[in-house]
Amino acid sequence: MVKKVLKFGGTSVGTIERIQHVANIIKKEHTAGNKVIAVVSAMAGKTNELVKLSNEISEEFNKRELDVLLSSGEQVTCALLSGALIKLNLKAKSWLNWQIPILTDGEHTNSRIINMHIEKINKFLDDKGIVIIPGFQGISKNGDVTTIGRGGSDATAVAVAKIFNADKCEIYTDVDGVYSTDPNKIPVAKKIDKISYDEMLELSSLGAKVMQPSAVQTAMMYDIPLEVRSTFTERKGTKIFSEENIDYSKSVTGVAYSKDDAKITITGVEDRPGVAANIFEPLSKAQINVDMVIQNISSDAKTTDITFTVKRDDIFKTKEILNKSNKIHYKDIIQNDKVAKVSIVGAGMVSTPGVTYRMFRALSDEKINILAISTSEIKLSVIIDESNILKAIKKLHTTFDLD
Amino acid sequence: MVKKVLKFGGTSVGTIERIQHVANIIKKEHTAGNKVIAVVSAMAGKTNELVKLSNEISEEFNKRELDVLLSSGEQVTCALLSGALIKLNLKAKSWLNWQIPILTDGEHTNSRIINMHIEKINKFLDDKGIVIIPGFQGISKNGDVTTIGRGGSDATAVAVAKIFNADKCEIYTDVDGVYSTDPNKIPVAKKIDKISYDEMLELSSLGAKVMQPSAVQTAMMYDIPLEVRSTFTERKGTKIFSEENIDYSKSVTGVAYSKDDAKITITGVEDRPGVAANIFEPLSKAQINVDMVIQNISSDAKTTDITFTVKRDDIFKTKEILNKSNKIHYKDIIQNDKVAKVSIVGAGMVSTPGVTYRMFRALSDEKINILAISTSEIKLSVIIDESNILKAIKKLHTTFDLD
Repeated sequence: MVKKVLKFGGTSVGTIERIQHVANIIKKEHTAGNKVIAVVSAMAGKTNELVKLSNEISEEFNKRELDVLLSSGEQVTCALLSGALIKLNLKAKSWLNWQIPILTDGEHTNSRIINMHIEKINKFLDDKGIVIIPGFQGISKNGDVTTIGRGGSDATAVAVAKIFNADKCEIYTDVDGVYSTDPNKIPVAKKIDKISYDEMLELSSLGAKVMQPSAVQTAMMYDIPLEVRSTFTERKGTKIFSEENIDYSKSVTGVAYSKDDAKITITGVEDRPGVAANIFEPLSKAQINVDMVIQNISSDAKTTDITFTVKRDDIFKTKEILNKSNKIHYKDIIQNDKVAKVSIVGAGMVSTPGVTYRMFRALSDEKINILAISTSEIKLSVIIDESNILKAIKKLHTTFDLD
Repeated sequence: MVKKVLKFGGTSVGTIERIQHVANIIKKEHTAGNKVIAVVSAMAGKTNELVKLSNEISEEFNKRELDVLLSSGEQVTCALLSGALIKLNLKAKSWLNWQIPILTDGEHTNSRIINMHIEKINKFLDDKGIVIIPGFQGISKNGDVTTIGRGGSDATAVAVAKIFNADKCEIYTDVDGVYSTDPNKIPVAKKIDKISYDEMLELSSLGAKVMQPSAVQTAMMYDIPLEVRSTFTERKGTKIFSEENIDYSKSVTGVAYSKDDAKITITGVEDRPGVAANIFEPLSKAQINVDMVIQNISSDAKTTDITFTVKRDDIFKTKEILNKSNKIHYKDIIQNDKVAKVSIVGAGMVSTPGVTYRMFRALSDEKINILAISTSEIKLSVIIDESNILKAIKKLHTTFDLD
């Protein structure tokens, strides 16, 4: 008998028809002899609707009360799904944050789950009951309602899988898995059958947003097998495991991209120790995340140019900080926010020589200029002109046999 | 320092603007030095919306889950109102059914409040905090969510007033009090300043539906002073006390009416002991409420006619039962559902001779035929043709100096 956690996102439970459809998915799992705990999000649009109401009162609505407000969304879904299962003559029961309870730590609107009581629920599962749990929320040690941040239902599902020692956690959503690149942009994009936690993290933080990264991290930490799959088709999804479970026939698993970066070049900076620190220290203090850094070779042996990328939203703040700093002397600041980041991701890269070379050659063949480069064990990212992004993704997808 | 329970109904908290307005009402009470506990309903329309969702799944939606579903409505209002008060720089906090907790007894969707924990909330009130509590709900001994029936927020407010030993319970609603008759029908209807619990019960169950009758009954039982008043005007409302606090200058307090009755006459019934019992026993068993009964004088000393009134919805069932019964012998059944009930209500009636006579004379002056009569200590009701209802109300309103 397999114990499964099934998580259904907002679009999967967005209408009564869809909730009934989800009830049928759960029925199938239950009939197959599995123990099922379902974790549900608020119906699509509901959380935004509630946030909007709170904003009409105050943009800085009290966070304790915001948690009370928002947690009502998943409560509604729990009751409706449980009622739909009972209507199918199944034994089902909703358990709210305080009934389980889901214990959390940390501050309002940004808590994290630390524990749950398992005895009553395990007994109910043993008695062939189906358990429905609200995602995204818990209670604090003081007995206040807490929430764990937007997209937090994924984190709840993984926490439930861990605490209840489930065999598997399936994330039902509106896409049928993780793709080798954006299928909306590149029609030959292919669904990835198996992927490692690391690769998933690199892909999801780079654009293929199908699952909340911190939930993937937790699953990785406790080695909980995940599967991302569609609520609306019967097709298999993408399985997410630890690397040792994956046979890497391909060095590159996927091509990701993002368009929220900007490049800044500071010219005529003194070329002496401590200068880079003087530039990046105030940015770090201002919570500005610097991604890639390139220091050009000095042209006159006395000054140099430093290029780096930040999130596009941070450009204004970055320039303001650089202007204000009296420790930095430079000739000019040149900004370029018409850039994009393209990355190839693959746990097999580290053991495959020549991946870096093949990437640069492929881009060069397409006459795409590389503005900056950054590398990690399983990822290779380049900054290019935004206008070249589609061409670059297509070429790399073909180059690494992903079509 | 006065401890007040303020209850705000669905229309009073139907929009964010209205919730902000309610926050200002509470602020005024708090600034005046009162300890305030606010009991709130779901935003207007929300409960119906949730019921509709559940009906799309099943007309007989599981009652435990229905309670989980419906209770979310008041939770939303609690959070929004509390946030609106905090935005006004007041100390406020929402307490949900399980946080107080509100302990209930009885079955799902129809529980009743039996107790609440008061220490933490009293401490918060002592520390000048404003307490926001959801109406209509509680939890069972098993720790399940329960609700106490539609309109139950009035009952919650009165229970809170009783358990927290409040000095007063104010029911804020969309009318500014209890009127001497329906102000939409009779423009000279006057707001009643003071009324006894008994009169309020007779008036509200007869048509002037401003407050849930069972909540009035509880207030009467524990002698909790009530006031029904409008959220949208500053005017004083109607105070509801025990009779001894009211100086009855008028014998009649109000004229109520209802149009949901029907009259049934059974002709040619044997005139011997036990016949009435044979007629009304099966009706009682079928939960049909017989209101007024008249037995006409026998015309031939052997048979008689029996007339009675039932709710209009019960006519079909009543006739079916009479037809099926083999204990009842009669000539004919005549039904009339074009009738209405008009009542004069007043705790002063019992000490004022001639009220009955004046009522009959007034109706007779208007050539209105009385089809049935029933009386109680504080109420005198007659059944008349539906077409005469407006004329009757007007005449009685004038006759008893209510204009």
